[in-house]
Amino acid sequence: MRIGIDLGGTNISGGIVNIDGKILTSYSIPTEVDKGSNKIIENIVSVIRHLIAKKNSNQELHSIGIGVPGIVDKKGVVLECVNLNWRNVPLKKIIEEETGYNTYLANDATVAALAEASFGSLMDIDTGVLITLGTGVGGGYIINGKMMTSPNGLASEIGHMVVGNNNVRCNCGRIGCLETYTSSTALIRNAKIEIINAPHELIAVSKFHRDYYKNLNEITGKIIFQYAKDNDPIAYKVVDDLAKYLAIGIGNLIALIDPQVISIGGGLSKAGDFLISVLSKKLESERIFKSLSPPLIKLAKLHNDAGIIGAAFIDKYVEKN
Amino acid sequence: MRIGIDLGGTNISGGIVNIDGKILTSYSIPTEVDKGSNKIIENIVSVIRHLIAKKNSNQELHSIGIGVPGIVDKKGVVLECVNLNWRNVPLKKIIEEETGYNTYLANDATVAALAEASFGSLMDIDTGVLITLGTGVGGGYIINGKMMTSPNGLASEIGHMVVGNNNVRCNCGRIGCLETYTSSTALIRNAKIEIINAPHELIAVSKFHRDYYKNLNEITGKIIFQYAKDNDPIAYKVVDDLAKYLAIGIGNLIALIDPQVISIGGGLSKAGDFLISVLSKKLESERIFKSLSPPLIKLAKLHNDAGIIGAAFIDKYVEKN
Repeated sequence: MRIGIDLGGTNISGGIVNIDGKILTSYSIPTEVDKGSNKIIENIVSVIRHLIAKKNSNQELHSIGIGVPGIVDKKGVVLECVNLNWRNVPLKKIIEEETGYNTYLANDATVAALAEASFGSLMDIDTGVLITLGTGVGGGYIINGKMMTSPNGLASEIGHMVVGNNNVRCNCGRIGCLETYTSSTALIRNAKIEIINAPHELIAVSKFHRDYYKNLNEITGKIIFQYAKDNDPIAYKVVDDLAKYLAIGIGNLIALIDPQVISIGGGLSKAGDFLISVLSKKLESERIFKSLSPPLIKLAKLHNDAGIIGAAFIDKYVEKN
Repeated sequence: MRIGIDLGGTNISGGIVNIDGKILTSYSIPTEVDKGSNKIIENIVSVIRHLIAKKNSNQELHSIGIGVPGIVDKKGVVLECVNLNWRNVPLKKIIEEETGYNTYLANDATVAALAEASFGSLMDIDTGVLITLGTGVGGGYIINGKMMTSPNGLASEIGHMVVGNNNVRCNCGRIGCLETYTSSTALIRNAKIEIINAPHELIAVSKFHRDYYKNLNEITGKIIFQYAKDNDPIAYKVVDDLAKYLAIGIGNLIALIDPQVISIGGGLSKAGDFLISVLSKKLESERIFKSLSPPLIKLAKLHNDAGIIGAAFIDKYVEKN
């Protein structure tokens, strides 16, 4: 048995997870960010104690893992976590002292990749990448079967790789980040721009334009993909542009990391095979050394529970030095 | 003692290297690519035998390392090497059978990074990157103290990361690769374009324009940097643009790999501290999470002998599974 904790800005969710990745018991309480750093830690410990009390006495607890929405260093110190108002919190040490169990931390996007590696689209893969397309763009790697850790804990900030010169400044401060092209935020922004700037000949044939030019603020990623699937020219162009830059980002990951599988997760991955099909066409021109096998492009399998399941198995992916 | 072999398209250079990275004996013969794959292998073996014969009988040979100008997989198979006309050559196995010594292979750009990690700008670094700016742009990583290997052997093709939309198609087939912005080839091409398109007010004050607008084909990277150092506005702009895109590429490496040190090598690194100074200014806006320590930017230390020295020490950086 392992305990996995998904530490979010709103809730702390935890679960007892068995060796097959099944959540046997789960428990969740509010994070209470406004009550300060110590209260958050108290709440994490409280979730862990609750779960330990719930487990059968004959079940041995292997370890605790925590997915943190911020930057974690190799020693288990949370260097920075904007949502929790944390800086330099030695969380691993604190939890180990409080509970007596070995505790492992990782960034929450990395944890999602570990869940995929353990039980989803990146299973049995040496080197794989998860890219999550949500309101932001994140991701995580498995490299040579291990989680990638780095001195600053920064590695795998996939959404903050610059892939073009679109003049859109990202929250991170850079211009042209993958996130500014391929997040749901970017998709919706670009759909509005395309509707506003649509030439007459497109307006005449676009149901998407007809249905939404007076209701721009009702446009969602789901709606854009629905119209694009129906071959609406404006909606399709917006999805096609997203795919183009996602392909450039993936082409960069191929050149820099050479994954065997690239898994697409996050809210926009609900567009499913349609997204993969548009993306795959764009990817052809972004692959270097075309004689070598291209990575497989897959959809992520674990969704809501990935945070708990991935956290429970962090220890399996820690580089032993 | 180790033997390091620098396998190039023109020459095969080898050396006996001691534990301090000093080349005690070296030997070089032509590669003879035109005589075919078997002849090249014969020549490699011949260099190794020559070196073994030269070593003192009391010196124990630890291993052999070979830097290959192509793509090498984890098993020591050269998957593709355009310059040598090789595909799927099991070089590690062949050399081990021929010589009886453990043999390690790596891509030549990675080998240059290993030389820096062993005795140069990346010494005692967990995670570091070498970027070589020559007629092309290459590079290698040290990640968690190890060489990065990948299923296809492709990792660390830094020059083929797309960093903008300049409409320049790279040799690799992609558009906007770092190489099309920051190689000496790109620098010289951009200098010619800037001279040809210079507005009157710049022409009036640019000695670089005055000296070279009739001799465009005499322009070299060295000349551009000389004029840029003297604050020539056209030459400085060309260097500034190179630094801008090099900074974007480095910003991407920070987001994706988070190195502690980034080392700049290759022909253009002869511009030295001037290049580092222009680059450092551009880098400020490309760093994500500015509260974290930035990587150090250094100049590579090993030059001509990096291929032999790095190859000799490949074994130290191989991931033990």
